[in-house]
Amino acid sequence: MTSKEAKIVVIGGGTGTYTVLRGLKKYTSNLTAIVTMMDSGGSSGRLRDEFGILPPGDVRQALIALSNESSLLRALFDYRYSKGEGLEGHSLGNLFLTALAETTGGMDKAVEEAGTILNIKGRVLPITNDNSTLVATYENGLVVEGEGKIDEPEHNGELRIKTISLKPAARAYPKSLEAIEQADLIIMGPGDLYTSLIPNLLVEGVAEAVEKSKAKKLYIINLMTKFGQTHGFKASNFVTEIEKYAGKCLDYVLINDKTLPEEIIKRYYEKDKETPVVDDLNGDSYKLVRNDFLAEGPIKRKSGDLLKRSLIRHDSDKLAKAIMEIVEEICAESLGM
Amino acid sequence: MTSKEAKIVVIGGGTGTYTVLRGLKKYTSNLTAIVTMMDSGGSSGRLRDEFGILPPGDVRQALIALSNESSLLRALFDYRYSKGEGLEGHSLGNLFLTALAETTGGMDKAVEEAGTILNIKGRVLPITNDNSTLVATYENGLVVEGEGKIDEPEHNGELRIKTISLKPAARAYPKSLEAIEQADLIIMGPGDLYTSLIPNLLVEGVAEAVEKSKAKKLYIINLMTKFGQTHGFKASNFVTEIEKYAGKCLDYVLINDKTLPEEIIKRYYEKDKETPVVDDLNGDSYKLVRNDFLAEGPIKRKSGDLLKRSLIRHDSDKLAKAIMEIVEEICAESLGM
Repeated sequence: MTSKEAKIVVIGGGTGTYTVLRGLKKYTSNLTAIVTMMDSGGSSGRLRDEFGILPPGDVRQALIALSNESSLLRALFDYRYSKGEGLEGHSLGNLFLTALAETTGGMDKAVEEAGTILNIKGRVLPITNDNSTLVATYENGLVVEGEGKIDEPEHNGELRIKTISLKPAARAYPKSLEAIEQADLIIMGPGDLYTSLIPNLLVEGVAEAVEKSKAKKLYIINLMTKFGQTHGFKASNFVTEIEKYAGKCLDYVLINDKTLPEEIIKRYYEKDKETPVVDDLNGDSYKLVRNDFLAEGPIKRKSGDLLKRSLIRHDSDKLAKAIMEIVEEICAESLGM
Repeated sequence: MTSKEAKIVVIGGGTGTYTVLRGLKKYTSNLTAIVTMMDSGGSSGRLRDEFGILPPGDVRQALIALSNESSLLRALFDYRYSKGEGLEGHSLGNLFLTALAETTGGMDKAVEEAGTILNIKGRVLPITNDNSTLVATYENGLVVEGEGKIDEPEHNGELRIKTISLKPAARAYPKSLEAIEQADLIIMGPGDLYTSLIPNLLVEGVAEAVEKSKAKKLYIINLMTKFGQTHGFKASNFVTEIEKYAGKCLDYVLINDKTLPEEIIKRYYEKDKETPVVDDLNGDSYKLVRNDFLAEGPIKRKSGDLLKRSLIRHDSDKLAKAIMEIVEEICAESLGM
């Protein structure tokens, strides 16, 4: 097996997965993005409520990540209306996927067709085709339903999530299970732990499939904690939580070791009470890759929502290079070298 | 010049122009649709008001007409939301063109880009890139502003329109003027006389360009009158009105001579007080082409709005064949045969 033949599966959703996919598509087409379908906030949440479709936001981001950077359709897919009664806040991509889901009969088919229209490298699959809601139970017994309300909590954001589950249970999308089973490398993170990553592992059969898959499993640690989800988390807390849901299966953990700029850290704390994730990893049960994975220079703000929140973020290329080195390792192993 | 080399320009908007374009694209790529930008009703009107863009509805229909019939993008462009707060009634094509206009900086560029994305045969041009409102003055002195209010009048629909004008004056889109100047055949109609056809002729320089163009001019008479616009009109009234605005320039007039089904006529009258246009033409100053141009069989209703209103309508192929015969005539003439 060569590195181009290695089947890479990225499980997640949101900006973190977008960053990983965007980098990897330059190196391989053997790329499957499997994304959460539990979004309930913003434009996605409104369309979900009004049309009874699965939320399009996370698949949209993954589709954009894998599409041609210079394509006008890509820019349009990411375009967000800043005015218009009922239109404001919607992205054209979400409206496009809604129309496709209504026309083709389901979000799974919509995502497939959109991939063709956008001429993406690799493919995007929903983790499930079932409509299911995320439910978080906090350490004080508080129960909160809905991804949107977990993501932007009205309760005390320092509270830790004790358990998280789906209501009702969701069945895995068969092609997604198949991709996990056949993968050579499964990548999780970076991304919001409880609203972008773990939701995928809660879908029936997914955690088992990940654990059983012959694929190496790689987890990329977030740069910053998130108030309301991972307040005060150190790197080991992230690993522990992922392995609580995916099983003790991680082969690789990637973590940034480049110091974050003081000034931006300050701004993050003042604005959202977010702090840099402290690296307390020891690499006992997995191979630890420490390196500079930080995006440098002034981060462009866009009209869309992809990069707006992320003045501190991972660098697509740096991540992709490190991942492809791991893929080379896996390939060498597979040849018994 | 062969018939495929002949430059055909269709001036109009709405369903009638859609029907002509859809037929012609099977015979030639040398096809330019120049469409009205004065729509102020429905989805187009809302986007026009909220975004300050030119109304996308008529260009959308022309783009769809010239796109590949089996393309999914075409179907999506024509998809209309039947629910969703603020979304209901919008077509995805209109929202797409709005986003494109906002991204590219104007509806003219948006239409060009959309043509590329939809891979259309021929091209679509706006008659103007200026924002202008249609104003009708009726025989009793009543003045009504806005295409939407002229098209679906709240006043007595039997009133005749004495004059119609634009406020403020609109300048012609240069590429449209150029296409008119270089055309071998200019087609107007079928279509709503005062809201789809004549608005184009009101744009500065257009009527003069049409009259001066070396192109033969062809007008296709509507099948039915329209209450509020052409109530009680005979065929000659249509011709007189067109020549009032375009100059006495028509070389060909096409009119259907196939009898319309009694039962449907009755339904049209009961519902909208619309009646078949009586053929009182004599062909004094133009060549008169009488033939069966009627679409037969049960007309498909669509989720979109293109064909819904048109249980009596022209047949795309029959029109296109008759038009191409005229093109052959023009070509033969050009060769001095």
